[in-house]
Amino acid sequence: MEKTIYLDRIAATPVHSEVLKSMLPYIKEKYGNPQSLHSFGQEARSAVENAREKTARLINADPDEVILTSSGSEANNFALKGSVAANRKKGSHIVLSSIEHPSLLQPAKNLEKAGLSVTMVPVDKWGRVDPDDVKKALTEKTIFVSVQTASNEVGTIEPIEEIARICREKEVVFFTDAVAAVGAIPVDVKKSNVDALSLAGNMFYGPKGTGALYIRKGLRILPFIEGGNQEGGRRAGTENVAGIVGLGKAAEIAEREISFRTKHVKPLRDHLIQGMLQNVEHVVLTGHPEERLPYHASFCVEFVEGESMLLNLDMQGISVSSGSACASKSLKASHVLLAMGLDHALAQGSLVFSLIDGLTAGDIDHVLSVFPSIIDRLRKMSPLYTEFLEEMKK
Amino acid sequence: MEKTIYLDRIAATPVHSEVLKSMLPYIKEKYGNPQSLHSFGQEARSAVENAREKTARLINADPDEVILTSSGSEANNFALKGSVAANRKKGSHIVLSSIEHPSLLQPAKNLEKAGLSVTMVPVDKWGRVDPDDVKKALTEKTIFVSVQTASNEVGTIEPIEEIARICREKEVVFFTDAVAAVGAIPVDVKKSNVDALSLAGNMFYGPKGTGALYIRKGLRILPFIEGGNQEGGRRAGTENVAGIVGLGKAAEIAEREISFRTKHVKPLRDHLIQGMLQNVEHVVLTGHPEERLPYHASFCVEFVEGESMLLNLDMQGISVSSGSACASKSLKASHVLLAMGLDHALAQGSLVFSLIDGLTAGDIDHVLSVFPSIIDRLRKMSPLYTEFLEEMKK
Repeated sequence: MEKTIYLDRIAATPVHSEVLKSMLPYIKEKYGNPQSLHSFGQEARSAVENAREKTARLINADPDEVILTSSGSEANNFALKGSVAANRKKGSHIVLSSIEHPSLLQPAKNLEKAGLSVTMVPVDKWGRVDPDDVKKALTEKTIFVSVQTASNEVGTIEPIEEIARICREKEVVFFTDAVAAVGAIPVDVKKSNVDALSLAGNMFYGPKGTGALYIRKGLRILPFIEGGNQEGGRRAGTENVAGIVGLGKAAEIAEREISFRTKHVKPLRDHLIQGMLQNVEHVVLTGHPEERLPYHASFCVEFVEGESMLLNLDMQGISVSSGSACASKSLKASHVLLAMGLDHALAQGSLVFSLIDGLTAGDIDHVLSVFPSIIDRLRKMSPLYTEFLEEMKK
Repeated sequence: MEKTIYLDRIAATPVHSEVLKSMLPYIKEKYGNPQSLHSFGQEARSAVENAREKTARLINADPDEVILTSSGSEANNFALKGSVAANRKKGSHIVLSSIEHPSLLQPAKNLEKAGLSVTMVPVDKWGRVDPDDVKKALTEKTIFVSVQTASNEVGTIEPIEEIARICREKEVVFFTDAVAAVGAIPVDVKKSNVDALSLAGNMFYGPKGTGALYIRKGLRILPFIEGGNQEGGRRAGTENVAGIVGLGKAAEIAEREISFRTKHVKPLRDHLIQGMLQNVEHVVLTGHPEERLPYHASFCVEFVEGESMLLNLDMQGISVSSGSACASKSLKASHVLLAMGLDHALAQGSLVFSLIDGLTAGDIDHVLSVFPSIIDRLRKMSPLYTEFLEEMKK
């Protein structure tokens, strides 16, 4: 088989070799349950607490502000539902950006059915939230605001420090989904003044099945999985010790290597963006041109469906995504792209290249060399493109 | 260090070597997200579906009746809250046995605060639920009944087939927490007619951080983690692929070896029970003498605290538990033992020996040889025991 080029960091990263190494003892011989009082248990417990510290350090939180979860989606659900349930007496209004992840939009929709009022804040054509729009959306009844740190679909980084400041002034809980951002750009909960934040290990070379929810000390949240002493009684269930250890190691590595990673990946990403815009006709970059995740290059390609491109690239050994992995089976156009004002047809041609560590300029050149011919072939089969060409002739 | 003898199966089992072997490729090179449409993703997806099939086979379910979760506690929370939410229009009454796991009792308590009515069914001195008591508890408004398959604290196996039959007649959803049972005794959802069931991988030589919820085809349940296409839209979050593969392998091994395991472990367990009752004064077996999990030996020892025994055994390299791992940090007497009518003081002396594969008669003999001297030493420090001896002298 020919070489594979994996460009789907937003779906999952490979697990770092140091991460795997750190996990193995906790799958093999150190199999105690952290809740057990004997030595086996205490050994596992120390490992969990050690990993919690490392995870906390990556986002500049205190260890007891970190609740370990099984995924970013769980952390998102937990943040929203747990916080709303704890603050229901204070108010009944929440504010979300219109490009939040489905694991926030869906629970919000269901809370709305249950009587909560929900305001969706728009984004501009780059996918940016205007902090003033958040300010305007706040009412006396607002108890929760959610704006992501960066978009996994279009890479845009949001002005969360300003939004956090506005929310802090009004004493409204500000939550940010930082799943696409943590490990890729500096995230500092103290500096940015966010009240709550989610992350996922598999987004920065840690294992799948790991995530965390940061909750600022003193903030109230009701447990999501109830009925156990784990995580200070806030999240029941036997700890995934090996996974948690891996998450901690991945956090430690990310803290150490984050600037090196950016220095490596950003030029490759820029090369890819320039090459795409130069080599392929009718392609637009989606998301903000500068304020974007360093590993992230996303496009809409006219007259071609995202999924067809994805599958054709896959046949050439190139793995990309056509949007969020969590929505990949649904044929609907991305809610993110539609919120940015792209028209429905163009949004169908979405393609996301998200770069992992260790890629070379040669890899990117290879992608750029095969892509135009794939597009040509697909466009020849597209009735919309034929129509467009006919129009052009007139 | 001297040999360690691990007798805390109810807290966590070691991971079977075949299980670890099956997991490794999915931590290393096969790192795709099962929701991704490219080959990496599809490879991961097949692995998840294959594991789902194996998990389903162990309990005689169809694969699409199995929702993969991150723990038994999550599956329990999910079953109760998801089922109640889906059936809220039908009724507002639920029935639980009084010895259910905290991950059922706690959500039930909170549902009660939210307006649901909850009936707790008692147990006899062996910890058995009388199916007639369940029958009597059912009303026209009952929408959910929960009785565990077997107790992790006292080992008692419940008459779930009879209870399931009663519930089926009344068209009430019957759920059973089978976390302590699956992989240790035959569990067959079709034969027993249960509607929903939970299990956890780390209870039968699979990895921690894995569990599953069986929901009979056609039954309604609302999603617990919302906002993703995973698990048929019923449980969002990137799949813990390696963990799930490990769960599947553990299920496959359990199916193959379950009768062998019982044949091996039961005589050792019986030897331990007999030895304890013969060698130590003032010890009672808790739970049913025959209808109990084959790996399970649980006792209450008078005049000594469970935790003290546990820590002293640990110093001798013997790992046991003094109750449910999920409640190990709380100093309260076990709700299970109290429900069985044990008095508070006796319940404090709870000790659970739960046997894993690979133990020898020599291991059990060793435990039996060190235990009496530990008890003697601890009792000498117990004011209650001194009082008791004084009383005896009179």
